[in-house]
Amino acid sequence: MPEYRKDPITNRWVIISSERSNRPIQKIERKEISEEIFCPFDKGNEHLTPPEILAFKPENSKPNDENWWIRVVPNKFPAVIPDISPKFKKNGIYYSLDGYGYHEVIIESQKHHHKIYNMSEKEVEEIIWAYLIRFNEIKKDKKIKYIQIFKNYGSDAGASLEHPHSQLIATPIIPIYIEEELKGAKNFYSLKKKCIFCSIIEQEKIDNIRIIEENEHFIAFEPFAPRFPYETWIIPKEHSSDFGILRKFPEKVKSFAEILQHTVYNLYSLLGDIPYNYMIHTSPFDNLNNNFYHWHLELIPRLTHAAGFEWGSGFFINSISPEVAAKNLKKQRR
Amino acid sequence: MPEYRKDPITNRWVIISSERSNRPIQKIERKEISEEIFCPFDKGNEHLTPPEILAFKPENSKPNDENWWIRVVPNKFPAVIPDISPKFKKNGIYYSLDGYGYHEVIIESQKHHHKIYNMSEKEVEEIIWAYLIRFNEIKKDKKIKYIQIFKNYGSDAGASLEHPHSQLIATPIIPIYIEEELKGAKNFYSLKKKCIFCSIIEQEKIDNIRIIEENEHFIAFEPFAPRFPYETWIIPKEHSSDFGILRKFPEKVKSFAEILQHTVYNLYSLLGDIPYNYMIHTSPFDNLNNNFYHWHLELIPRLTHAAGFEWGSGFFINSISPEVAAKNLKKQRR
Repeated sequence: MPEYRKDPITNRWVIISSERSNRPIQKIERKEISEEIFCPFDKGNEHLTPPEILAFKPENSKPNDENWWIRVVPNKFPAVIPDISPKFKKNGIYYSLDGYGYHEVIIESQKHHHKIYNMSEKEVEEIIWAYLIRFNEIKKDKKIKYIQIFKNYGSDAGASLEHPHSQLIATPIIPIYIEEELKGAKNFYSLKKKCIFCSIIEQEKIDNIRIIEENEHFIAFEPFAPRFPYETWIIPKEHSSDFGILRKFPEKVKSFAEILQHTVYNLYSLLGDIPYNYMIHTSPFDNLNNNFYHWHLELIPRLTHAAGFEWGSGFFINSISPEVAAKNLKKQRR
Repeated sequence: MPEYRKDPITNRWVIISSERSNRPIQKIERKEISEEIFCPFDKGNEHLTPPEILAFKPENSKPNDENWWIRVVPNKFPAVIPDISPKFKKNGIYYSLDGYGYHEVIIESQKHHHKIYNMSEKEVEEIIWAYLIRFNEIKKDKKIKYIQIFKNYGSDAGASLEHPHSQLIATPIIPIYIEEELKGAKNFYSLKKKCIFCSIIEQEKIDNIRIIEENEHFIAFEPFAPRFPYETWIIPKEHSSDFGILRKFPEKVKSFAEILQHTVYNLYSLLGDIPYNYMIHTSPFDNLNNNFYHWHLELIPRLTHAAGFEWGSGFFINSISPEVAAKNLKKQRR
């Protein structure tokens, strides 16, 4: 029997309907993206991107030379730009604001075909370090309220290049999904004097049917009301509202990299080389330290296309229950 | 220069960034869906769907015979089902509800390859009549709070069959996007004593740069803060909170069908046979007649894949401004 389930944070409902998995829909397969001539992220093509903002490389290397293993550059086709003084505009009932912000690309490796699931643990850890350095650097810009760190893997997940990379977009506006999570988390806190994410971890440990993996500092699980089949969240076990604080705990960075890599590996092992997105949710800069919000990573495999019902209603139909998904993913653990 | 724009109804922000349109992303082309053996919606295959709920056919036809031109049937792979007594369940902080509701398919024609843009006006009109009949019929079920009527065109828009069809899903829960629109509309009304959609129509007429077409009863325009390139809204010019009331005004049904067909034609003429979704937004059944909400249709072409940034933040990056989109679409009018 299908079931409506409510996400306890945002009060968004989803429909879990295993019946739907029988319909004759084409499964999305990740298609390799062919670059037309060359890849701007390959070694030797450093001049084809805007100058680097950060690079992990041997000491005494020159900026933009070939000796990097992780490289952060401004996006060549930016959604927002840092070199303007943003102004608000009003026209009747309409409001707009100049597109101030940062849009950067984290090039994760020199190897064009490298994947998170076959990187060394150290390589994944260093990607997280690159996120943390940029997060804590951009935070100093008082005009910026939020940084969204995310990865698009595969063209069906919105990637335009095959070369392994993540992105960040920093904006003077707090995104609406984060606002909604913050609102839900604040409500819960005012009622229960507890962080809702901490309560979710507790409940998940009691129910013990949606957890995929747990290590010293993190837990990976299928949320109770997932929008997408095999949607997986990774969350620090101890309350932590600020992703950026991780820089003070190298052993936690290691633990986070480990569980992220396992999560991506499990999906690959079960479902093949599927497209996916992940995004890190954290508190906005103006309230980084709080008791009610808990930073986490959300990973969504892109196995089906959201359709008119989803886009029209915000109601998601998910044909695989998180309990079945967790069971299948747990079997893959290496 | 990129620009943040705020949707005046929901306060959701989008980023309009024409710079992004230069990046080397693969454009989505609509792929024809090949049915493996036969199409369950073709004439002669009536026995392959669940028994019909409604059919437009000559008098004295038998149920489920071949003599229909529009046919409404329960979805064979339903997201929700009507033959249960729904119960709420609570487990700690988690809530769920049995998947009660209606999930129906409106088969729009017997012709397998027929498209809205090359149907007769009468054919489109009758599709709207089928929506209206089912809307007003399902309304009688007091357990149902909302009906989402929508169309998925093309597999990248979530369709699993090529044969022309729309769907409806009726639920005992008001979808979150509708809740958000209602909330924004109520706020606006309490401040200005006016419907926000009526105010949008006024402002659009003043600005006169986003309107594509206007007929006696409806207006089609690009919204100020569109999530997607060429997103188009169709809205009745006179305040009307209830889609279902249209059944009392056959001339308005005609006018709506006409502008819907033109809208689909313009997109086809400009962009080719692209995948798209449309969805009708209306007031929930428990408050059908009100001064603050205005029913409308939202059409979203599926030219790009929503990526990690969009899914993670609810912030949409749109590489084509609604003013440019409107200008391009207006040129296509036949």
